[in-house]
Amino acid sequence: MPNPTAAMLVIGDEILSGRTRDANMHHLSQELTKSGIDLQEVRIVSDRTAAIVMAVNDLRAAYDTVITSGGIGPTHDDITADAMAQAFGVPIDVRDDARALLQAHYDRQGSELNAARLRMARIPQGAVLIDNPVSVAPGFTLGNVHVMAGVPAVFQAMVASVLPTLTGGAPLLSQTLRIQRGEGDIAGPLGDLAKEFADLQMGSYPYQKDGVYGANVVIRGTDAARVSAAMTRLAGLFPA
Amino acid sequence: MPNPTAAMLVIGDEILSGRTRDANMHHLSQELTKSGIDLQEVRIVSDRTAAIVMAVNDLRAAYDTVITSGGIGPTHDDITADAMAQAFGVPIDVRDDARALLQAHYDRQGSELNAARLRMARIPQGAVLIDNPVSVAPGFTLGNVHVMAGVPAVFQAMVASVLPTLTGGAPLLSQTLRIQRGEGDIAGPLGDLAKEFADLQMGSYPYQKDGVYGANVVIRGTDAARVSAAMTRLAGLFPA
Repeated sequence: MPNPTAAMLVIGDEILSGRTRDANMHHLSQELTKSGIDLQEVRIVSDRTAAIVMAVNDLRAAYDTVITSGGIGPTHDDITADAMAQAFGVPIDVRDDARALLQAHYDRQGSELNAARLRMARIPQGAVLIDNPVSVAPGFTLGNVHVMAGVPAVFQAMVASVLPTLTGGAPLLSQTLRIQRGEGDIAGPLGDLAKEFADLQMGSYPYQKDGVYGANVVIRGTDAARVSAAMTRLAGLFPA
Repeated sequence: MPNPTAAMLVIGDEILSGRTRDANMHHLSQELTKSGIDLQEVRIVSDRTAAIVMAVNDLRAAYDTVITSGGIGPTHDDITADAMAQAFGVPIDVRDDARALLQAHYDRQGSELNAARLRMARIPQGAVLIDNPVSVAPGFTLGNVHVMAGVPAVFQAMVASVLPTLTGGAPLLSQTLRIQRGEGDIAGPLGDLAKEFADLQMGSYPYQKDGVYGANVVIRGTDAARVSAAMTRLAGLFPA
């Protein structure tokens, strides 16, 4: 049986403008791979409701699980929760349990639960809250979509709390061989090997360093013995 | 007039599996921003023909320009050129001018232009070649889609040769203020300011460092005087 599939939706003007580098995608891809969930697509869209709605509706129809990051804070440009409600066609309003979490948190801090902060208690109808042990304001799960914060420490905590609830598959194992030859010399024998081990994925990722060409050849699969057998053959084809 | 729009399509199993971090997206986003081209979406898909074809057809219909990276090397997992031909419904074959480039290169190197390397001369009908000053094997432009290599040095060289051919817009200027207060305190005044300067974009990007909460507030626009005026107001609202 094939592994469950996932997609990630990053809501991020700051990444599209080149101001910051995304960190959450790299974290999520590694965590999903360990869980045997096949991350098949990532989309990064700008902070526009129409773009978010269209992307999440595409992705939730195409993949088993969708994880989003960004846009659930208190500022005017945080529009993800409202966009999710629109995508699912459900109402959204301040919810009592989310409000109570925030109220207790700001009471402890001696801060005011003002109108802006209260926006973080707006939860689409029918959603399940995702715990935020870092800064309290919750994420939420609606259908197969898990809506998480963009701040890396919070995103990672939310991933840690959601991942155990997802149905995983066989973890994808991989072995890598660094071959210091041009891909043009590697390609023929590697292509033949890939046909012979059609149950595995073989990828060639070229590099060029100090004028030397080479490639990292990665063999991936769920059966450790098969991956090892293919790697032994590959190493024999390209002795160091 | 709004700035021209662009999307990026990354063909990259190695990024989706968490093995490597994408470097090309960050470079492209910065170059496009400088040129006044609005990068509105990035998609990362796996090395599957159907996924590439669907994504490129979506993106080329929705945006003025599409730039792809990855999958145009000589190995069996390099399927981008064939996927582009399929997406555009045109035939693909080895093209004489591309073959001549490769032949001259490998003659100089004393290497053989073998069957694998010759795959890099397969160009969809009607495409215009993109120069590759780093490792010769060309990219190509088909309609509004620019197909580039995934190796960062080559990708960057191809971006440098294509960017001047694109119609740019007014460069997007930005100024950033780091505010050491929780976003919940920033949100109200910032939202009012954003309404007042509706011709600008204002984004709040929270951070949390050593237990201190704050946000980088970024003001973006094409009119330097307006951006400065808004920043002066913002700094007055949140004195350091």
